[in-house]
Order: sequence, then structure tokens, then C-alpha cells
Amino acid sequence: MSLSSQGRTLPLTANLHPFDPLTPQEIRLGHRILKSAFPGVGLRINRIDLQEPLKKEVIPYIEAERLGKPLPRKPTRLIYSYFHRLDTGACCKALFNADNASIIYVKELPLGVQPPIDIDEITAIEELCMKHPAVLAEIEKLQLPEGVRVCNDPWMYGSDSPDETRRLFQCFMYVVAVDHPQNNHYSTPLKFSPVFHGHTHELVRMDYLPGGADTQTTETQPWKPVETIQYAHDLLGGDLRTDLKPYIVQQPEGPSFSLDGNQVSWQKWRFRVGFNNREGLVLHNLTYDNRNVLYRLSMSEMTVPYGDPRAPYHRKQAFDVGDVGFGLNANQLTLGCDCLGHIKYFDGYRSDSKGQPVLLKNVICMHEQDNGIQHKHTNYRSGAATVVRNRQLVLQMICTVANYEYIFAYILDQAANIELEVRATGILSTVPFDNENGETVKWGTNVGPGVMAPYHQHMFSLRIDPAIDGFNNTVYYQESVPLPEDHSNPYLVGYTTEETVIKESGTAETDIQRHRVFKIRNDNIINPITYKPVAYKLMAAPSQMIIMPKHAMGYQRAEFASKPIWVTKYQDEELYAAGEFTNQSKRAEGVETWVKRKDNTENEDVVLWHTFGLTHNPRVEDFPVMPMERISVMLKPDGFFTKNPALDVPQSSQSFNKSTLHPEPCCSSMKPKM
Amino acid sequence: MSLSSQGRTLPLTANLHPFDPLTPQEIRLGHRILKSAFPGVGLRINRIDLQEPLKKEVIPYIEAERLGKPLPRKPTRLIYSYFHRLDTGACCKALFNADNASIIYVKELPLGVQPPIDIDEITAIEELCMKHPAVLAEIEKLQLPEGVRVCNDPWMYGSDSPDETRRLFQCFMYVVAVDHPQNNHYSTPLKFSPVFHGHTHELVRMDYLPGGADTQTTETQPWKPVETIQYAHDLLGGDLRTDLKPYIVQQPEGPSFSLDGNQVSWQKWRFRVGFNNREGLVLHNLTYDNRNVLYRLSMSEMTVPYGDPRAPYHRKQAFDVGDVGFGLNANQLTLGCDCLGHIKYFDGYRSDSKGQPVLLKNVICMHEQDNGIQHKHTNYRSGAATVVRNRQLVLQMICTVANYEYIFAYILDQAANIELEVRATGILSTVPFDNENGETVKWGTNVGPGVMAPYHQHMFSLRIDPAIDGFNNTVYYQESVPLPEDHSNPYLVGYTTEETVIKESGTAETDIQRHRVFKIRNDNIINPITYKPVAYKLMAAPSQMIIMPKHAMGYQRAEFASKPIWVTKYQDEELYAAGEFTNQSKRAEGVETWVKRKDNTENEDVVLWHTFGLTHNPRVEDFPVMPMERISVMLKPDGFFTKNPALDVPQSSQSFNKSTLHPEPCCSSMKPKM
Repeated sequence: MSLSSQGRTLPLTANLHPFDPLTPQEIRLGHRILKSAFPGVGLRINRIDLQEPLKKEVIPYIEAERLGKPLPRKPTRLIYSYFHRLDTGACCKALFNADNASIIYVKELPLGVQPPIDIDEITAIEELCMKHPAVLAEIEKLQLPEGVRVCNDPWMYGSDSPDETRRLFQCFMYVVAVDHPQNNHYSTPLKFSPVFHGHTHELVRMDYLPGGADTQTTETQPWKPVETIQYAHDLLGGDLRTDLKPYIVQQPEGPSFSLDGNQVSWQKWRFRVGFNNREGLVLHNLTYDNRNVLYRLSMSEMTVPYGDPRAPYHRKQAFDVGDVGFGLNANQLTLGCDCLGHIKYFDGYRSDSKGQPVLLKNVICMHEQDNGIQHKHTNYRSGAATVVRNRQLVLQMICTVANYEYIFAYILDQAANIELEVRATGILSTVPFDNENGETVKWGTNVGPGVMAPYHQHMFSLRIDPAIDGFNNTVYYQESVPLPEDHSNPYLVGYTTEETVIKESGTAETDIQRHRVFKIRNDNIINPITYKPVAYKLMAAPSQMIIMPKHAMGYQRAEFASKPIWVTKYQDEELYAAGEFTNQSKRAEGVETWVKRKDNTENEDVVLWHTFGLTHNPRVEDFPVMPMERISVMLKPDGFFTKNPALDVPQSSQSFNKSTLHPEPCCSSMKPKM
Repeated sequence: MSLSSQGRTLPLTANLHPFDPLTPQEIRLGHRILKSAFPGVGLRINRIDLQEPLKKEVIPYIEAERLGKPLPRKPTRLIYSYFHRLDTGACCKALFNADNASIIYVKELPLGVQPPIDIDEITAIEELCMKHPAVLAEIEKLQLPEGVRVCNDPWMYGSDSPDETRRLFQCFMYVVAVDHPQNNHYSTPLKFSPVFHGHTHELVRMDYLPGGADTQTTETQPWKPVETIQYAHDLLGGDLRTDLKPYIVQQPEGPSFSLDGNQVSWQKWRFRVGFNNREGLVLHNLTYDNRNVLYRLSMSEMTVPYGDPRAPYHRKQAFDVGDVGFGLNANQLTLGCDCLGHIKYFDGYRSDSKGQPVLLKNVICMHEQDNGIQHKHTNYRSGAATVVRNRQLVLQMICTVANYEYIFAYILDQAANIELEVRATGILSTVPFDNENGETVKWGTNVGPGVMAPYHQHMFSLRIDPAIDGFNNTVYYQESVPLPEDHSNPYLVGYTTEETVIKESGTAETDIQRHRVFKIRNDNIINPITYKPVAYKLMAAPSQMIIMPKHAMGYQRAEFASKPIWVTKYQDEELYAAGEFTNQSKRAEGVETWVKRKDNTENEDVVLWHTFGLTHNPRVEDFPVMPMERISVMLKPDGFFTKNPALDVPQSSQSFNKSTLHPEPCCSSMKPKM
């Protein structure tokens, strides 16, 4: 549990920063502690991961770092584990102190509370399904032609009853029409769907899926071959485009960023790259020009409810952060495919079900990009122009959740803006639909023969733990409203702004008609030019909220998706908008619970949660793989500086940028001369 | 008026495509025709430019081109001119047939109807102002120190009275504190502002600007030197950043686009680049894979009303398209500064006040860019991934409107999306404000000592003349709404879409709560997969509309800015949302008038106008030059294809992209080993 170095015994964590991701040694350590706590008991490890350190311990440490002062005691390094006792069948959680290799607590989770799905488990269910006699019997009825086989995607079961306490998986079945590593089985969904018990591995039920536009199901019939809609290039009929020319980014002097472990410095920004199994990429301790901006920024939850009202589809409501984890699902990225230019990759680790570390290589990439012009002005008298380009630093993670892909990019720029860009791509979740005679449904889109993609929503919760020039901040909103029609406004053109402070924990709506803008300010620091408190504003993404009545179980499990803005007072362990345990949850225990404390949130350590989303009524163009749908949220300084912070970025010039002029045709004989 | 070629006499227009921009020969031709129509009369030319050809003449021509059929007769080449009779003082408009060098009509504009401001005129007013004794007398009172002088920006006068018929200019005065071609005089506004008559050049009135937060004005006082907030790099105190490394885009095999005159072909797109003095960049006849998509796409108008209620600021409401022209104001772009990569530039022409052509060099640029990932899917079983990057073609125009800059970019991609991205940058329009003792106003932001930037809005009207698989289209909107809580929706998760067709010309609101999406479809062509009409959808930019009551003159002049969506039936000459003549207009004669016809717009030749904007309550960070504020509108195929149209784009690969791996530190001695 410790390493010997220069004769002294150092804990494993001695050289780690509080925000460093979990190391493989710590996974092994966690497993060793667990084993010694349960001698002779078989344990199945669901997860071993970093627990966020206590903020009150962290702040003195990072403030000393920022101010160049002697470092105080390091915050306690915490590790948690979810695991399953094979003797009693209980699901448990343990918290460890990694510095001294001790247990802080072990607790049994209440019956019915399910830890997330893990990678080994999903593989096991998938294999089990393919071997189960009941499934084989259904496959037999399909009378598949030679070379055609079946596969399945195990899904989190969702919830439709307060009484269900079993750990369940619903397997959706597909025909594999082509033997190819990128065959698109989502083009050929089948109409039976077994449900398995995750612990006992028993078949709970065989569901049959509706074949038409109503709820009617039938016994499994022989499969009628249809054209499959493929995306893999060697499965496409027809040729690829040949007229796309290479576009190469060169950085002959290297990148503009520098690294010290997981600490990144770039263009006055400094921050730490974090990674955990649940949220994946996390940004910690963002400062600009050594001023505090954010304590922590993360994708705290996402839920995807589907609009097809029919069983068993009504339970399709993935919580991709809480039910599985964007860290676990993060793609291992490849040079030259996922980014362009000079790329730095970061790795992560997970535990397998035996408590052994598994390397997640290249799960985060970092690179610079050019985003066009940041600012320009031409003096029209002198013709003199100042042009400054918008160089950005991108931290990207791509998550595959079975059929679907999310690309998350945190983008920093030289004007002190922080953007989260989300791209939704991948393959639509499809259902079988007998549409050969022109049938349609009112909750989905036909995307091919025999296949329909139901309407659904993607509801994201971005958790913003701000530190605008300090850790006590206030969230408020500003609206633009006409001045009264009186002597103060004789020409009726005047307008002003009205402010509403969110004084206690609660929610707020967006309002485009009034140009409602949410801001985070530090009431203790006044800007010397504006005479107002320093602030950042949230460029929100106003979105339709979850389309369900309040009394729907799907709503109650994801109440965070019912309001765009949530403000809470910071408390340790309040990190996930729908609560810690979302898998088969009956109702959320997240922001909707925490706001009820009615904490004072004025000039306090506050957290701002922004729910935004895509109502995704599929286009046929989204199949078989979807051109990305982009949604973006930004934080911009608003009276944080005394002028444009990017003024000192060097001017854009040909000697720096080395662009190429398109050659003109040698003669313009077609055109009459002047 | 014609050229001799191979012995035959050809009209000047013989080799021009109907959508080609005006040539310098045509400007000379227009001027010659005018001169011969008014022998002995002094004429001051305001504008000579292309008039949009008649659509009914164009369609057979471009359809023959598209289908590879013999070309019918070319549409008549039309040129218009605004000019001023020096004998009678009347403002006139003339329309010419350039093919046969004949006049179609000459008409005198009604008294008070003002053609736009032209470049020579604004230069003349600026010079006149600096020499006028009344102005010099005010400057004298400033008692400026050695080396400090005064300059002025002439502004369109705006409107506040139905009786004003004179052509007026309001000059805003500034101290030039530093003798430098990029001195920022907007940092030091003065408190007097002369108004001149544009035709007679007489001083109409000397306005005095309020100095404090109320309307009180004072006589001109000696100027108290203040710190000026500069943006030019050699005027900045302190150093530039030295840690930004070069970022070079190389296209060793050249660009993926090809040109035939102004016709561009790129990745299944084909279109013509148009340019005129008023709108600047226009896209004509966009087809994808030889299918019609758009007939014409242009920025039809923009208005910028200011929220400071005090005279004379209440008249500050620029119509930057109609009052001046984005074509006239377009920057002459420079290689390596405004774009990166392999750049093609397009030129334009304007007439000067003597009817002579003036080259507007490099006013449009075209280049490709990489926009990250377009689609990706990883098969989690096999690990096999398909990644296709999002190559884009960008057509960009940057307009300087005195202090302010707009960057307009039409962006096409390989998934058949069409985006308009607008970036607002440049310098805020400022006013003097004695704020040395902590004063603030409720309609503006202090941006420096003695200077305040009032709240304002930028309201854009994007004119979309669609041709979705043909010229008769229908605009409708779709909303996502819960299914009823009955037996059809027992689990309450179901939702569906409801459709509303805009059957007659009119307006519509956006509605985020219902995820209202506007679409343009062709009712005559049914998608064989979805069984619905082929369509494109508008990814609108829902924005606060103009903040003024209906009875405000500023509202009535810009009624297009009061609703986000307008649908009209196409008529020739209905191109500009606020009407043809906006300069000193009393009320608009644009979309708000045309929709009143209540034309049938179902399966007709329709035009969709989208008003979107920025409510811009300045940040101090927006000074002295503003980090760009981005707003974007997109048109996306929605059931136009039968699957993802970008499937045939080659896979992203390291051999094509040639990225660089960030070198790892040679030893990781800091970290304990596993």
C-alpha cells in the first residue's frame, strides 16, 4: 500500500495533485482494502474511482498554489467503490482514504438502488443473451439465410414501477445481415426482446415489440430480408467522393500550450484536466491571468427519454452519465482521425469487475484550432486595419453509448471565453416497423425499409461551479425592457435592463422575448470602469424542456430536465443533477431536492446548473449515421476585465499565417475589356 | 455602348451570366445613357448597380443550364441608378436595359424619399464639417493641447418627424488624441454635433449632447485630457503575447473547389457568387447534386436602434443595408489576415458620384475550413470506427460601418447544410459621459473615462428565396407536444409533432417551449423512405425583437424587426425587408406591407424572411474593439435525401490529415510505477 523511495515510505498519493485522475495503483489499492475488509466474501467490483476531494480542504491548497505561497496540507485523497457481495447479493458503496489506505465507510445500498452498469457486466449480459435457449428458440423461428446472424444491445432497463427491485437488462435484438466489423445492425431491428436479471442471469421475460403503428405484437415470424442501410465505406454501393483535397494543419514551432502533469497553461489560462469514470473529462481550477474563474466544470448528467408511447419503449430513458458513465464510454482516440493539428492525449483508468485497472488510452485530446476572426476594425479614413484571429484550445472527449455518439469539447479562447460544444452523432436508436406500404407513425420517422427511429430528447446538465474572482458568488439575471412611455422617453426608443438576484436556491426559466441573460458576479469586487461587480455571463442554450407531465415517472426521475436554470449552495457530494444513483431510479435525488433547502445563495459558494437539450425528431438524413447536431453553451466575461482581454494578441499577418492565393486564370478573354 | 468582336457588334452584356455582378463597362454605359437622357443637366450619381433580373425570365434559363438543355433567350440585363438633378434638386431613379442600352424608366422620387448615402457624399460631408466656421468655433472653445485635433463621423440622420424632407447628416465629433492611423477616437467623444444639409451643405443646427445621466447640455468647455483606450498594437502600453505559435493551413493539392467565372462547384454544391452595392455578397441558384435548393440567399436588411432615450441619440437607428450598403462598405480583404488557407477573392465595383467605376478589390473571399467531426460511429464490439470530418466552404464578407464591423459568412458543408454565420465586432458607438465620480446610466455601460456605450440592438433580416426541388414551396412549422394522457399513452412518455402550414402571406413567432421548427417543403415531391414531402428546415436564431412600442417611429421604420418569421409570395423587386428607401424613411414599405396582400403561399413561389438579432448591452470587454459576438442561422435538409448525404465523404485518416503527436516527457519519474 505504499512505495519505498529513498528509504522513506511514501503513500501512493504523495506525488498526486488533488485533482489528478485516479491512478492504476489506487485502483489496486482500493481493491486490496476491500478484500481485507471482506475476508472470504466474493466481491464483484462495479467501480473504483476518485471521489471529489472536500472543497474546504482544496481551496486553501489551490489558493496557495495560485498565490505562490507555501502549500498547506494536501486535501485527503478519496476513493470510492461500488461493489456487489456475491454472498448476500447486496450492492454496497465504500469510501476510502487513499493517503493512509483506510476505510472511511462501507454501506449497503437500500434494496432497489442500483449502481451504474459496468463494462464487464454489459459484455456478460450480451453473451448470456446470445446463448440463452429462449433466445435461440426465437432466432430459430427467424429461419435466417446462410451467413446472416443475430446480435443484441443490452439496455439499462429504465423504470415503470415503484416496486421493481431487481437489477434488470433489456436486450434489443438485431439481424446482422452482413459479416463486417461495421455492419449497421440498427438497420434491421428484430421484434423480440428478452429481459434478464443482472445478478442471477435468469430470463425474466420475453417481450415482443409492436410491428405496426399500434401496440399489437405477434409471434416471431421468418425474417424477410431487406436492404440494410450501411455507413461503412466498404459496404456502400457507389463510389466515395474523389474531389476532396487534403487540408493539413501545421504547427512548425509546436503548440502554444505547455503541461505540468495534468496542469495546462495556455494563453493566460491555467487549469487541470480531470477524468473520472462517470463524467469523463472535468476541468478544475480554471484561472485566467492568475485570477480565479471556475472551480469545476463538468457534464453532470444527461437523459434521453424516448417519445414512442408503447411498451417496452416507454422505459427507454438512458441517463448516460449516471447509468453508465461518459468516462467509461469515452472513445480511445486516434491521431489524425478525431482531431487535426498538434495533439496531446490524456489517458484514464477504470477498474474491471475483479478490481484490476484497465487503461483507457487517449480518452481526452487537446489541441489548438483557428476559429476565424476574433476582432477586427478598419479605420475607414486611413484604411488601416487591425485583425486578430481567434485561436482556441480544445479539450475533447467522444463517448459511444451503444448506438450513439456524443462529442464534448470545452473550448477556451484568448478573450477569456469558455465554451462547451456538444455534438450529437452516431446511429439513431431504431425500432422495427412494417412500413412497406407507406405506413408512418406520429412519434417517429421511417429511416429505411422495416425500420423507424422514434422521437426523443437529449437533455444535458452542465454543472458550473464558479469562482469569479473568489469562491463566494451571486447568480442573477438581467432583462432588456422598454423604458416607460413618459417624459423620460419622449421618442419611445429607450430601453434599460432590470435585474433579478437569485437570493435563495431555486430555479429559473429562460426568456428570449425579454433577452434574459444569467450572470455570475462577485459582489465583493467592483470593476473600476463600470462601477459594477465583476461578472461572467452564461450564454445559455434555451431549449424545450422534457416533454412529459410532472406525474410521469420519466419526469420524476429527471426533474433536472424540467427547468433550464438551477442554483444551489455548494455542498460536497452534490455533483450529479439527477442524483448519485440513476440506474432504475424511481425518482431523482438531485438538484430538485437540493434547491428545496432554500439556502441563501447571495454572495455564497453557489453552483449554477444549466439544463439544455435537443428535441430530436429524427430526419431520414440522420441515418445510418447522423451528421452532427451541434449545441453550444458559453461563459463570457462581462465586466470581469476593464477592456477587451485579447488586445495583446498579436495581429494576424501573412508572415505568420502563410496563406495561399488562389491562382487567377491566365487570361480573361471571355470578358470584354473596360 | 457595344464592343466589336470578330466584325460583329456584341452588347456589353453578351458574355455575362444573368447573376454576374455589374461590370465597370456597365457602370460607364449607365452613366452614358443617363447623360444623353438629360442633356445639359448636371447630374450627381448616387448609385449605378445591377437590378435583379426578372425571375420568370431567369428560371427557364437556369433550369436549362441545370438540365443540360439548349439555353433559351437570356434574361434582360437590368441596371438601375439613383441620381440627383443639380438643376431641380430632385432625387431620381432610372432603370436601364443594358442589353440594348435603353432606358426603361426615369422617375423622380417623392419629396422626402432619400436614396442611400454614398461614399463620395459621406467624404464630402466629413470634410465640409471640419471646415465649417461654426464647427471651428466650437473646436476653438476646446482649447486643445498641441498635437490634439478633432474628427467627425457623419451619420445618417434617422427620423423623428413626418415633416422632414431635407437630406440631413448628423456629424458626431471626437477628439483625436494621438496622431496615428489607428487612433481610437471613439474613446473621446465630444459634446457638440452639427447637422448638415446633404444637398445645400448648409449647417442646419448645432446639437449639444448631454454630459451626464440626464438630458442637460452645456456650452462647449475646454477639453480635459483623459486616458484614451486604444486597440492598435503600437499604441498599447505593455507587451504583446509572445507565446502564440504559428498555425498554418496547407492544401498541397490545392482547394477542393473549382470556378467557372462566378460559378463555384464544391462537393456536390453548385452556385453563383453575386455582389451588389446594397447587400454585398449574394448566393444565387444553389443546387446540391444538381437538385435545386435555393434560388437566392441574401442579407436583406439590418437595423441598429439605440436605447439611449435622449436627443439627438433617439434618431440613431442605422439601416446598414438600405441606408448605405454592405457592398459599399465591404472591406478589401488581405491575404493571411482575414482568412486562413487557400483563398480565392472576388472583386466588385461601384460608381463614384461622377458615374465612373471604382474597383472594390477582394470584397469577398472564399476558402475551405475544417470544422471538426461531421459524423462518427464506433462499433463498441469490434472497436471499428468510422470518422468523417466536416469540411466546409466559406464565403465571407466583412463590412465596416464607420465604427462597427460585421463579418458575414455563408458556410456550406458536405451534409448539404447551409449556414449563415454573423460575427459582430469593431468599435462600439460611444457617447460622452462625465463618469469620473462613479456615475452610471441605466441604458449603457461605462467603457472608459468620460465615455459610455449605449445599449442597442442589431436586427438582421435574412431573405431566403427557396427552391426545394422546384420553385413552388410551402412554409410550415412543426411543434413537439405531449400525446394525450389516455389509453394511447399509458406511461405518459409519448410525444408527437403537430404541423401548421402558413397558407397565406403573414408572420409567425418562434416558440422554444414547443420546439417550433420552421420548414420549407415541396408538396409535389414525396420522399420514398419517409413518405413525406421533401423539405429543408430552418435552424432559426430565436431573438428578442425590437424593444419599442408599435407606435414608435423607430418601430414603424423597421417593422420587419418585430417578428422573427415572415412569409411572402415572391414578387420581383421585393428584396429588402424594410423597403427600397430606408434613409430617413418615415415608415417601412417592406415585408410588413407585402404580407398584407394575404397571398396564397401554399405550394407557391414563396420567400421566407428570418429576422434575428443581438440585443447588445455592451460589456466593458467590448471596448475598445469588440471580441466577436457570433450568431448563426442554418438550413438543413430534412427528408430531402433518403439518407445521410455525407456518407460518401472519405474517412478521416492520418495519411490524409498528417497530424502531429505531442511528445511525451522522456521520463515520468515524478509518478510512482504501477
